[in-house]
Amino acid sequence: MDSIGIGLIGWGTVGCGVVRVLQENESIISNRLGMPLVIRRVADLDIETPRPVAVPREILTTDAEAVLRDPKIDIVVELIGGLEPARSFILEALESGKHVVTANKALLAQSGNELFEAARRFERTVAFEAAVAGGIPLIKSLREGLAGNRIDTIFGILNGTSNYILTRMTLAALPFSDALREAQQHGFAEADPTLDIEGIDTAHKLAIACAMGFGSRIQLDKVYTEGISRIDPLDVRFAEEFGYHLKLLAIGRQEQGRLEMRVHPTLIPSTHVLASVRGAYNAVHIRGNAAGSIMLYGLGAGMMPTGSAVVSDLIDLARDMFCRAPHRVPPLGFLPERLEWVPVKPMEDIVTRYYFRFSAMDRPGVLSKISGILGNNAISIAAVIQKGREVEGAVPIVMLTHEARERDVKRSLAEIDRLDVVKEPTRLIRIEDHESAEI
Amino acid sequence: MDSIGIGLIGWGTVGCGVVRVLQENESIISNRLGMPLVIRRVADLDIETPRPVAVPREILTTDAEAVLRDPKIDIVVELIGGLEPARSFILEALESGKHVVTANKALLAQSGNELFEAARRFERTVAFEAAVAGGIPLIKSLREGLAGNRIDTIFGILNGTSNYILTRMTLAALPFSDALREAQQHGFAEADPTLDIEGIDTAHKLAIACAMGFGSRIQLDKVYTEGISRIDPLDVRFAEEFGYHLKLLAIGRQEQGRLEMRVHPTLIPSTHVLASVRGAYNAVHIRGNAAGSIMLYGLGAGMMPTGSAVVSDLIDLARDMFCRAPHRVPPLGFLPERLEWVPVKPMEDIVTRYYFRFSAMDRPGVLSKISGILGNNAISIAAVIQKGREVEGAVPIVMLTHEARERDVKRSLAEIDRLDVVKEPTRLIRIEDHESAEI
Repeated sequence: MDSIGIGLIGWGTVGCGVVRVLQENESIISNRLGMPLVIRRVADLDIETPRPVAVPREILTTDAEAVLRDPKIDIVVELIGGLEPARSFILEALESGKHVVTANKALLAQSGNELFEAARRFERTVAFEAAVAGGIPLIKSLREGLAGNRIDTIFGILNGTSNYILTRMTLAALPFSDALREAQQHGFAEADPTLDIEGIDTAHKLAIACAMGFGSRIQLDKVYTEGISRIDPLDVRFAEEFGYHLKLLAIGRQEQGRLEMRVHPTLIPSTHVLASVRGAYNAVHIRGNAAGSIMLYGLGAGMMPTGSAVVSDLIDLARDMFCRAPHRVPPLGFLPERLEWVPVKPMEDIVTRYYFRFSAMDRPGVLSKISGILGNNAISIAAVIQKGREVEGAVPIVMLTHEARERDVKRSLAEIDRLDVVKEPTRLIRIEDHESAEI
Repeated sequence: MDSIGIGLIGWGTVGCGVVRVLQENESIISNRLGMPLVIRRVADLDIETPRPVAVPREILTTDAEAVLRDPKIDIVVELIGGLEPARSFILEALESGKHVVTANKALLAQSGNELFEAARRFERTVAFEAAVAGGIPLIKSLREGLAGNRIDTIFGILNGTSNYILTRMTLAALPFSDALREAQQHGFAEADPTLDIEGIDTAHKLAIACAMGFGSRIQLDKVYTEGISRIDPLDVRFAEEFGYHLKLLAIGRQEQGRLEMRVHPTLIPSTHVLASVRGAYNAVHIRGNAAGSIMLYGLGAGMMPTGSAVVSDLIDLARDMFCRAPHRVPPLGFLPERLEWVPVKPMEDIVTRYYFRFSAMDRPGVLSKISGILGNNAISIAAVIQKGREVEGAVPIVMLTHEARERDVKRSLAEIDRLDVVKEPTRLIRIEDHESAEI
């Protein structure tokens, strides 16, 4: 063996990143492996549009099968995204005896269990460092670096688009729609931003990270998912007055054999390290029972960071190939037969602190009515402020609670919103401050 | 094979951490490996003092040879620290066909090249995640997670003791000696704190990290090392007024085939993520040409975090053993024959920004004399403030420079300190703000 053959399927931004990293860092990679990683084929439906990197014309093809069937290709890199035909391509690559590297979080979150099972059957590996948190070596840290730990929590800002938007809403007091437009202009948000702003992309990543951290099968359908599109800058401002920052957080937690997996706008203390993660950066805070609090921080997307992650997987796989150990580390870090369907707490059972903003009429007795309902539902109030005076007959009353159960909160708010003194549906944002003390 | 045999040499704090992690997380580790990691022997000169963890009496020994010669021990964990006999024990373990895990940064910084060479000769591995940054998976990230990158800079807070002291000097305005005493009372500093406060421990870690990041042999003797024991809280305060935080930073940089390796008190912008790293925490900021800026953060020392790192190495080595690939990844991440003695810039050639505090007599013309000397040496001034009025015939003049060369700075300060209007040696602190913009 004097080189490792690589085939790319998908020659978009990330594909170009992979090519550039392999080209620019060729000598470094050779110094690590003793041989080069050589791109043998690049398949894309569009091979005509000019790209920021060049590959020899003769290795370009519009036919993915030309990659999948090439005997000189050892590792297939799937970068087309989406569910199909990505899934079929990966299965076919594994069946042909090739290893697979993918950045496809949507597919892994949806079909990872099936794909990993297939990889095992064919004694091949599916590697996916690029699928979660871009250039940050999060997957390797969860799978290997923290392997001696019982992981208790995984907290993260896993979507740069949402974080950019929330950062702009916070620092420049922009409304959501303006911040989104700005993100689109800067190339941080796509024309259809739904996956990013509705928390779906974050949920994909959380589902994968939780499986790895907690030794569970992947359970995307159990991730509670709420995006940022309905956030009012007013709430960002009020939260700041209480010493909180608003972030779209992915929260994974393991407690007494049950998982929490949820993605939603979250208030974290302004002094928390995650609060200072700005713009398109990602950060993940992991708590292990041995390592304690760990934070990993970096660029979660983009051509070069994602290319970096793909190439680190390629180097890993090349090393596995040298020692004929295709299964050295199982994809999720646990032996497949030991992975469980760890039960996931229904959202109604979550216990956390809450921020409420009521739009109530400025009349005597209103606060007493509201707090009465909360009290009857075992929700106790930590702080309350009434901001400003009446606008169109209503004033905002902002309240922070002590720990309460989501079920009780939902029941109370339904009742409160039916009061005739309440003019608009109450805004609710969950608070996380468990993890802040030790950081 | 139905278990992996572990032998510990050194049953102090970290040894107890390793035992506790293996005991508490036994089932998690088995679910990863399919078999347990079993402690077969524990050697320590003192096996009588009660420890916070229990092991069967019959596996305790005062004789390290009993570990090194036990055929049922596959991996020897060296945790006695210091140069000898640790070095001899490791060489003997390798020669007996055992893998080695060590947390001994002093030894690796000093003799790593020799030990890694021996490991290669005997086809065994020396693993050392615990040697740098405790529970943070920094070694794995440099060696594997970021393997596709040309690493350009490694910036870090790598010593929790110094960081605790500086944090207290900053937040509570304590003088150095009080902050040190407090650190000792809290168990963050040893009775003889020299290694920590004089930057030596940080230099050990930087030497190792730079070898891994930059593909160099380990060159401890080329690391410029300056500690924090002479820091005056006055400078901490003035720096804050200019928007800077004082940290003991390990700085590694690769530029045009030359390395910078230096450890010294450093001013970083208060908005830099590293500025918010408080107390006993460690953090490392790495810039790769593909991944961009990455930061890793966590506890750099302590029984459980260090135990976590040792156990992640044990799991890694067990996996190597299963696939009979003792050399899957070279210790420094590069093939040993490709490691170079990359030239290291002498400190005099460093170009950076500087903070000066002059103690000068409050007389007309003093500033003009000082700035004249600086100007003649190609040092240009970015900001200057004169604080307060005369105390014992002198006033502090605080100055920030633009980029200047260390050689010119040293020459100028020698000349300035000879002026009869200057009452005390000028204080110099280097500034780093290159890396802040993108964070």
